[in-house]
Amino acid sequence: MKFTIQKDLLLESIQHVMKAISSRVIIPILTGIKIEAINEGIKLTGSDSDISIESFIPTEENGIIHVENIQPGSIVVQSKYFPDIIRKLPLKTVEINTTDEFKVNIISGGSEFHLNGQDPNEYPQLPTLYSENSFTLTNTVLKELIKQTVYAVSTVETRPILTGVNMTLKDQGLNFVATDSHRLASRHLPINLVDNQLNFNSVVIPGKSLVELNKIIDENDETTSISVTENQILFQTKNLYFLSRLLDGNYPETSRLIPDQSKTTILTKTKELLNAIDRASLLARENKNNVVKLETKSDNRVEISGHTPEVGQVIEEVNSESVEGEDLKISFSAKYMLDALKIIESDNVKIEFTGAMRPFIIKPENDEDILQLILPVRTF
Amino acid sequence: MKFTIQKDLLLESIQHVMKAISSRVIIPILTGIKIEAINEGIKLTGSDSDISIESFIPTEENGIIHVENIQPGSIVVQSKYFPDIIRKLPLKTVEINTTDEFKVNIISGGSEFHLNGQDPNEYPQLPTLYSENSFTLTNTVLKELIKQTVYAVSTVETRPILTGVNMTLKDQGLNFVATDSHRLASRHLPINLVDNQLNFNSVVIPGKSLVELNKIIDENDETTSISVTENQILFQTKNLYFLSRLLDGNYPETSRLIPDQSKTTILTKTKELLNAIDRASLLARENKNNVVKLETKSDNRVEISGHTPEVGQVIEEVNSESVEGEDLKISFSAKYMLDALKIIESDNVKIEFTGAMRPFIIKPENDEDILQLILPVRTF
Repeated sequence: MKFTIQKDLLLESIQHVMKAISSRVIIPILTGIKIEAINEGIKLTGSDSDISIESFIPTEENGIIHVENIQPGSIVVQSKYFPDIIRKLPLKTVEINTTDEFKVNIISGGSEFHLNGQDPNEYPQLPTLYSENSFTLTNTVLKELIKQTVYAVSTVETRPILTGVNMTLKDQGLNFVATDSHRLASRHLPINLVDNQLNFNSVVIPGKSLVELNKIIDENDETTSISVTENQILFQTKNLYFLSRLLDGNYPETSRLIPDQSKTTILTKTKELLNAIDRASLLARENKNNVVKLETKSDNRVEISGHTPEVGQVIEEVNSESVEGEDLKISFSAKYMLDALKIIESDNVKIEFTGAMRPFIIKPENDEDILQLILPVRTF
Repeated sequence: MKFTIQKDLLLESIQHVMKAISSRVIIPILTGIKIEAINEGIKLTGSDSDISIESFIPTEENGIIHVENIQPGSIVVQSKYFPDIIRKLPLKTVEINTTDEFKVNIISGGSEFHLNGQDPNEYPQLPTLYSENSFTLTNTVLKELIKQTVYAVSTVETRPILTGVNMTLKDQGLNFVATDSHRLASRHLPINLVDNQLNFNSVVIPGKSLVELNKIIDENDETTSISVTENQILFQTKNLYFLSRLLDGNYPETSRLIPDQSKTTILTKTKELLNAIDRASLLARENKNNVVKLETKSDNRVEISGHTPEVGQVIEEVNSESVEGEDLKISFSAKYMLDALKIIESDNVKIEFTGAMRPFIIKPENDEDILQLILPVRTF
């Protein structure tokens, strides 16, 4: 194998596939990066068995030459050293070649690295996914819906199914739901589907896969094609192939958790409420649950307060747009509330309560596709 | 105590005094920040007994009002919460007042904090330092000489005296030396002194104090006044008072370590050598000592190499300006060499060797005031 490549492009591809590489894998060769040179370009692969990422650098793109002097072949290099080496090379191009004993030479200006590589034939064959079961989203929408749901997945392994985001076909669109059983995030995405284009009901995508995918995909108008099989999901975008296993098991039915009526409704400036809760939580950091209290007052005022006996007390007064319905005192996790408010982009947020002991709903003003739910904390 | 103050100025002062505050102090009240209001302004104090910092915010400066509605008094607040609270307040000004029971109220817009404070009379009286034994440096020079020496202090406590920078009066100027016994950094500072203006011979300033001082002092043409007594040193600049204890004990005589002749001299581009050694050390990270090898070659070439059997080998060729004297093969710590090269600002660096087993000298081209020494590693 031999080729000369633009350093920056190679580095970008390395950073993409590194997102799938873990030092804690059972199969040692998976700590490496597989490099394959074909006449059409260079393909890098990283995998931890759960997530596999392939990044392709075409020989030529829009008339610009990215790779030269290709002699096809492949090798596996140690991922612990390769990224730093490439980043620190002195020139803008780098020559990479291999010898018969799986040695890799990396040459750039007066700098020469001779590394021990591994036999590419020992690298596991990645499952190839064939599915007609696919649809397309713009990258902007894909990143949006990851951000709007993945923060609410469970981070503990007691119920593994809750560490994923549930995607279902529903109401002429796709529904994404995440919950850790204390709070829930859901996003409905209306989508134009031809009859029977998609024939899955419900799959659960690991939260970790979505977090890594979100880091790689650029926010732009290009599209990502998403294909689903029984146990895998493939995200395919220009020069990038991101394959993740799906989680096994049945995702709990969450729709009955969502109250269909409310007793108290607050409409208020999102940013102002977020900052007030952030400050109110400062003194509550010592508490494991980081609990703050919300209380409705006269004249559309809402009071947020936090208290830790040893440290002191904080009282925040928020002048809301409107406070309708019954008076309310309720306590909840400041962290959950901040997480929910952070993903709301509209100026105003609407919060619907059905009493101090019932879950309450947080949603943007004038947008029924995003809905978040938080369970209160009993303190009264 | 009561006053209303510009939030940003208060925050800056807090960040200054926080540099002296440690959560591991023996005297609990020293985990707090002392706030004193007098008619002339607000003084904050932080201390861990070794370092004490006072920051003063004048009521008025250049016709601009910084503090208003002052009722003199003082209080000690918990440093764990105070900085975050001030930073997150909603308005540009904040009112701070105290009650009889050492409670502190912090009010800004709709935000009200009521914190438990502590009795300011329990805060230790800081030693006041009176010394005629003082001189003045511009902040730029002060920061420069901290940077040029403090990196070489010892970080282990086996010989506590080596954790400091030795300052001596010598050769019509001040001499600053730091060594951890494997390498040495020294800076000579010619200074115009009136006869007998300074009457100390040698003091040792804790490296940690200089690191913190360097963070606080802005790089500008203002001056810092430095006063020395037998066991303390005071750095005083506009509105800032930085007091550090000195280290006890005799600093070792280091001048005899510095070779007065050389057998091989290399003159080369600083940045190019630095990058080559940085790359050569990539594969040596596994070794505790991070050792690289330097070898002189024909035609003013210098070869830097690094080798770790399991990983591979790197060879860097550096085309130097000149290589004079005997041929040389020498091994040394890449980290020490990188530290030394990083503080050299001239385009070219001069390295003077007296054989593979002897310490070698690194200095900027055409500057005799900066000198660095590294002990080689025996590998041959």
